[in-house]
Amino acid sequence: MNLPATLPLIDIKPIGPDTRPASSVLVIYTGGTVGMEYNKRGELVPMKFEQIRKKMPELRQLNMNLSVLSLPEPIDSSNVTAADWLGLAALIKENYAHYDGFVVLHGTDTMAYSAAALSYLLENLGKTVVFTGSQVPVGRIRTDARRNLITALDIAVARHSTAGTVRVPEVCVFFNDLLIRGNRAKKVESQQYNAFRSENYPPLARAGIEVEFNDPQMRHLPSAPLHVHQHLDDRVVILKLFPGITEQVVRAVLEVEGLRGCVLETYGSGNAPTAPWFLNCLRDAQTRGVYILNVSQCEEGRVIQGQYETSSQLTDLGVIGGEDITAEAAITKLMFVLGLNRSPQETAHLLTQDLRGEISLG
Amino acid sequence: MNLPATLPLIDIKPIGPDTRPASSVLVIYTGGTVGMEYNKRGELVPMKFEQIRKKMPELRQLNMNLSVLSLPEPIDSSNVTAADWLGLAALIKENYAHYDGFVVLHGTDTMAYSAAALSYLLENLGKTVVFTGSQVPVGRIRTDARRNLITALDIAVARHSTAGTVRVPEVCVFFNDLLIRGNRAKKVESQQYNAFRSENYPPLARAGIEVEFNDPQMRHLPSAPLHVHQHLDDRVVILKLFPGITEQVVRAVLEVEGLRGCVLETYGSGNAPTAPWFLNCLRDAQTRGVYILNVSQCEEGRVIQGQYETSSQLTDLGVIGGEDITAEAAITKLMFVLGLNRSPQETAHLLTQDLRGEISLG
Amino acid sequence: MNLPATLPLIDIKPIGPDTRPASSVLVIYTGGTVGMEYNKRGELVPMKFEQIRKKMPELRQLNMNLSVLSLPEPIDSSNVTAADWLGLAALIKENYAHYDGFVVLHGTDTMAYSAAALSYLLENLGKTVVFTGSQVPVGRIRTDARRNLITALDIAVARHSTAGTVRVPEVCVFFNDLLIRGNRAKKVESQQYNAFRSENYPPLARAGIEVEFNDPQMRHLPSAPLHVHQHLDDRVVILKLFPGITEQVVRAVLEVEGLRGCVLETYGSGNAPTAPWFLNCLRDAQTRGVYILNVSQCEEGRVIQGQYETSSQLTDLGVIGGEDITAEAAITKLMFVLGLNRSPQETAHLLTQDLRGEISLG
Amino acid sequence: MNLPATLPLIDIKPIGPDTRPASSVLVIYTGGTVGMEYNKRGELVPMKFEQIRKKMPELRQLNMNLSVLSLPEPIDSSNVTAADWLGLAALIKENYAHYDGFVVLHGTDTMAYSAAALSYLLENLGKTVVFTGSQVPVGRIRTDARRNLITALDIAVARHSTAGTVRVPEVCVFFNDLLIRGNRAKKVESQQYNAFRSENYPPLARAGIEVEFNDPQMRHLPSAPLHVHQHLDDRVVILKLFPGITEQVVRAVLEVEGLRGCVLETYGSGNAPTAPWFLNCLRDAQTRGVYILNVSQCEEGRVIQGQYETSSQLTDLGVIGGEDITAEAAITKLMFVLGLNRSPQETAHLLTQDLRGEISLG
Repeated sequence: MNLPATLPLIDIKPIGPDTRPASSVLVIYTGGTVGMEYNKRGELVPMKFEQIRKKMPELRQLNMNLSVLSLPEPIDSSNVTAADWLGLAALIKENYAHYDGFVVLHGTDTMAYSAAALSYLLENLGKTVVFTGSQVPVGRIRTDARRNLITALDIAVARHSTAGTVRVPEVCVFFNDLLIRGNRAKKVESQQYNAFRSENYPPLARAGIEVEFNDPQMRHLPSAPLHVHQHLDDRVVILKLFPGITEQVVRAVLEVEGLRGCVLETYGSGNAPTAPWFLNCLRDAQTRGVYILNVSQCEEGRVIQGQYETSSQLTDLGVIGGEDITAEAAITKLMFVLGLNRSPQETAHLLTQDLRGEISLG
Repeated sequence: MNLPATLPLIDIKPIGPDTRPASSVLVIYTGGTVGMEYNKRGELVPMKFEQIRKKMPELRQLNMNLSVLSLPEPIDSSNVTAADWLGLAALIKENYAHYDGFVVLHGTDTMAYSAAALSYLLENLGKTVVFTGSQVPVGRIRTDARRNLITALDIAVARHSTAGTVRVPEVCVFFNDLLIRGNRAKKVESQQYNAFRSENYPPLARAGIEVEFNDPQMRHLPSAPLHVHQHLDDRVVILKLFPGITEQVVRAVLEVEGLRGCVLETYGSGNAPTAPWFLNCLRDAQTRGVYILNVSQCEEGRVIQGQYETSSQLTDLGVIGGEDITAEAAITKLMFVLGLNRSPQETAHLLTQDLRGEISLG
Repeated sequence: MNLPATLPLIDIKPIGPDTRPASSVLVIYTGGTVGMEYNKRGELVPMKFEQIRKKMPELRQLNMNLSVLSLPEPIDSSNVTAADWLGLAALIKENYAHYDGFVVLHGTDTMAYSAAALSYLLENLGKTVVFTGSQVPVGRIRTDARRNLITALDIAVARHSTAGTVRVPEVCVFFNDLLIRGNRAKKVESQQYNAFRSENYPPLARAGIEVEFNDPQMRHLPSAPLHVHQHLDDRVVILKLFPGITEQVVRAVLEVEGLRGCVLETYGSGNAPTAPWFLNCLRDAQTRGVYILNVSQCEEGRVIQGQYETSSQLTDLGVIGGEDITAEAAITKLMFVLGLNRSPQETAHLLTQDLRGEISLG
Repeated sequence: MNLPATLPLIDIKPIGPDTRPASSVLVIYTGGTVGMEYNKRGELVPMKFEQIRKKMPELRQLNMNLSVLSLPEPIDSSNVTAADWLGLAALIKENYAHYDGFVVLHGTDTMAYSAAALSYLLENLGKTVVFTGSQVPVGRIRTDARRNLITALDIAVARHSTAGTVRVPEVCVFFNDLLIRGNRAKKVESQQYNAFRSENYPPLARAGIEVEFNDPQMRHLPSAPLHVHQHLDDRVVILKLFPGITEQVVRAVLEVEGLRGCVLETYGSGNAPTAPWFLNCLRDAQTRGVYILNVSQCEEGRVIQGQYETSSQLTDLGVIGGEDITAEAAITKLMFVLGLNRSPQETAHLLTQDLRGEISLG
């Protein structure tokens, strides 16, 4: 993203009789299919936010003040990096006091990773940060951009009817008709509108004739002020097991120079081979200070180290059970916790904890 | 598995008035939860087949002759290797003429990988090979072993009512109430009975009051005799992308000595970063003769290289689009095609082809 | 509806460079939520089509000629009657030669009934008739009217890419992202966008980035020209069983003066009480010439008379098994078949037949 | 059922080292597919409980004392009546103090009706009453009877691990792998194992490797002792609307002599025709003291009278909105509330209330 010191702000004022809109939202446009157009080779490439503004005159019919921060060079979300997440977090920090809610327009490809990363970076979040985007560009007639963006804006400023307090104090993903906790989201569809799913945690809301919020499942309002973290450690890797994986491969991955953390994608409830060479590889990594977080390849799985002999040995080797975390939330959690630069003991402990609702302890 | 030259065969004859049972099935018991018991540490470990035989007296009530080949040392499926798949294929080859159908009792953890591997190894399969197992050991009262095994046996000998021909000439997985093509299966649940799903291909059958076969979706009977392949090349790796992945990691994986193939788990419809260092890594691997198969992280995704600028470049670099293949079927397809030892051109071509129903061409 | 002799036609011409649009669609606006607004009591009431036209300027951006027939008094679909269905059928007959496809804007409440009725009335249909509507009025910002109508229009003129023939020669319902056969549709949700489902037949298409048609499940193009029927017999009733239902109730329903047909909503696979008084009621009705069509209360059920003793007696009494038909398709099938005024034998026979894809014979 | 004064009690003692079983369950066998066998005509008919006992030797392996009350003449559940429900309630009352939990073996066809009826009759229920059965008779090898019954027994005696209090103080239905509140259940499948669904309330538990209880959704333990009601009024009817329904039909149903209540199955969110004749029919019924409960035909619907003009008029006529109740729970609620014989005002009020968790107030 390479954010410049100051970004131009586009303001979209509501039209109509209501002179004092109820609320204000900051939309951060990072790119993604939502604002894409075809280039001469027939491939989709990101365009400026103006593209969206022109296509959606109804943005002025919402009873809210919209301000849009458009990245100078919108990106395809396949190119998102950890540095971009720090930039996004900083943007939200800077503007936190001035808006009632935040909507991040983002490509769908890595949206689940980005939303998870932001959930860790924004500690004690007391406002709503909704990631959304679309599967079809806003310029095409069958686009899903309108409905996704408009409902995301509604959700970003949702308040409890009596208390008037923020209803969704979370980083979340809104897509098609589901609001999902950011660090529980997974992109599961590449060609259909309902691109995201959360298998291990119920949706936070469902949008139909009304948006029906699932209040009991929502995170609580924090008692402390927002604290925005500024470090992520990207010296991490995902190692996905498969039968036939060789010692060479495992060694190559775990012996990457400077490596500090590894998400180990295991089978079922957290099982891995018990071959001596494999356990030795893990032991050696452990000795070198590499944290290993055990995550199941099963979409709806939960790691229960100790259920089978094949997972018990992992516990003995200091491998940390990831519970029901997604791979997306796990790799970003590793980056975040390692970025905190705590003692080995604290680091290991934090990896087992539910930091932002990303796991349900079994 | 380390199969000895001859394995003891256990025969289970049906009781009752029918003296000449309609059909015969070979059950190959490899281990897995189905036959496990708790050891002294409270972990589940595999036991001999006798365990299952004793707990399921109803096996003698089926109107079929069962023969059971039990591996001398049943294994937890987390320890399965490519050598085991070759062993299984050889067992089926050896016994192919003597039985009407085959049931493989296998742990659920890697069942999808094993079923996919066997589907490639058994070319021109004209009989049914059903993988099954259970989430709860047969010895526990709430086991799902009975229903899974009994329906799997029924399916193994299913014939078309009029023609009398084999109804499911496929390697498949039966679990809970679904029959799924083996190379389309994915373990999605680690704690529930309905452990397997096939997102990109309809079930081959559903078991209720009756087993309802989905005949139009079945593979056709081969016109040539069974050909059992004897080679798999395990010099392969899965590289799962995530935002923030570093050049060091990508290089470490792709430069594993002797590496011949890599399943690249990309985003959405097959997108990857366009950063020069990343493309260079792929180009270098290509130059060294490493085949790269592009598979989507989306469970229900399909790789369409060229839809976005971020995937077009992959095509230019010789990366092969995996269509709607699962990671399980992709890594085993790589092992199989590389094991064929064909020319580079033929190898690349075979990787794009639908070999055993594992992909639907878009 | 009370259709006047001639209805005013509104034409919507496409804008843009394409001077000769590829195709033309007749939109018949009957009312429904899609065009509603709040009255002074805060209830939703139907408005004229102009309402929709103004809110959807994008209708002119489609590369097709749209003509709109708006009923002079749009209705809430709860008030639809059999006469309205005959009116609709006549409108389509009259305009059949002049348009490539037809879209009926209709309230969701009885859309499944209307689509089923039209499927029977339009024999040998060789063009597409799509029913659609919305859960949220077009004037509200979170409306689903746009996406439903626009995709319905696309589908109405869909052609096979090579042959150029009509792709969906059916009366169907498009809603949210599913295209469903009209006589298989059921409204299942009153507050969510995905209002319709078809449990016993796969969707005909699913709309995502592209509309993916399920061609093998489509009805075939007719070899004979369209024949529009002009009679429906509404001397019919639905009798839904419940435990504790009394003889008085059953008699009152079956002895309605002039009654000619009854959809009997039974339990499970078509079971009903075996009490003598109940069977006598059925026998008496039979004697009076009342046709009884047995339909299961189970959404995904199938009537199999003879599976249980409790349904075998129904067969003996001349009750006709409705197979896997919905209640909506069954009551309209009764109206249609009785309207044909055939001999008792032919009538009974037609009720067991698959007339328009509304049942799958077991 | 015609329960005799005293029923013979069959005791099934556990075998094994545990001499003092933890708990005791009363199983009430009413009939149903679970205990059926084929008669000479090839139809399924109910058999005595001995059938089940012989086929399930594992019942003695549970660490609980089972007592079985078998009805002298087991019935197909299509023949269940309101009198049977009163009999069942009386049986539970009589045995309430002597057992830790109750399992009712019942046919699937009307199980949802029976479970709903019992939920009303057993006020202040402090123990678990689980209805279960099977789709395939216990005597057939692919039966689902074992797993359904065994897990139902486990659930019947489930306690909170720390407090030791009853975990499911409800009348509920266990089937396949779901525990559903009795008055929320609906039979949706007639040929598959997963026969029951609850669309408007989450499952109370899901059975996999473990039974996972959904404690927050459970009803609370009552503070008052069990009160078993002894009256149900069956002078009720279900009137399911369809377009084209005639005045004759509506009058015939609503003017059944002595009628006291009617479940009106309406469209969508509770809409009905606004034709004067229809409203007059309702007004006349109202005048004669017939209570009309408005229930949606949509499985996942909710009646919101006043959302549309077509439902507002119903409120004016005294029609009572049934919220998100099922038809099964509605007709039994009518029988129960009318059986209480309260004043018109109290009766109408009770019909709007959530009595046993059968509705969620909108």
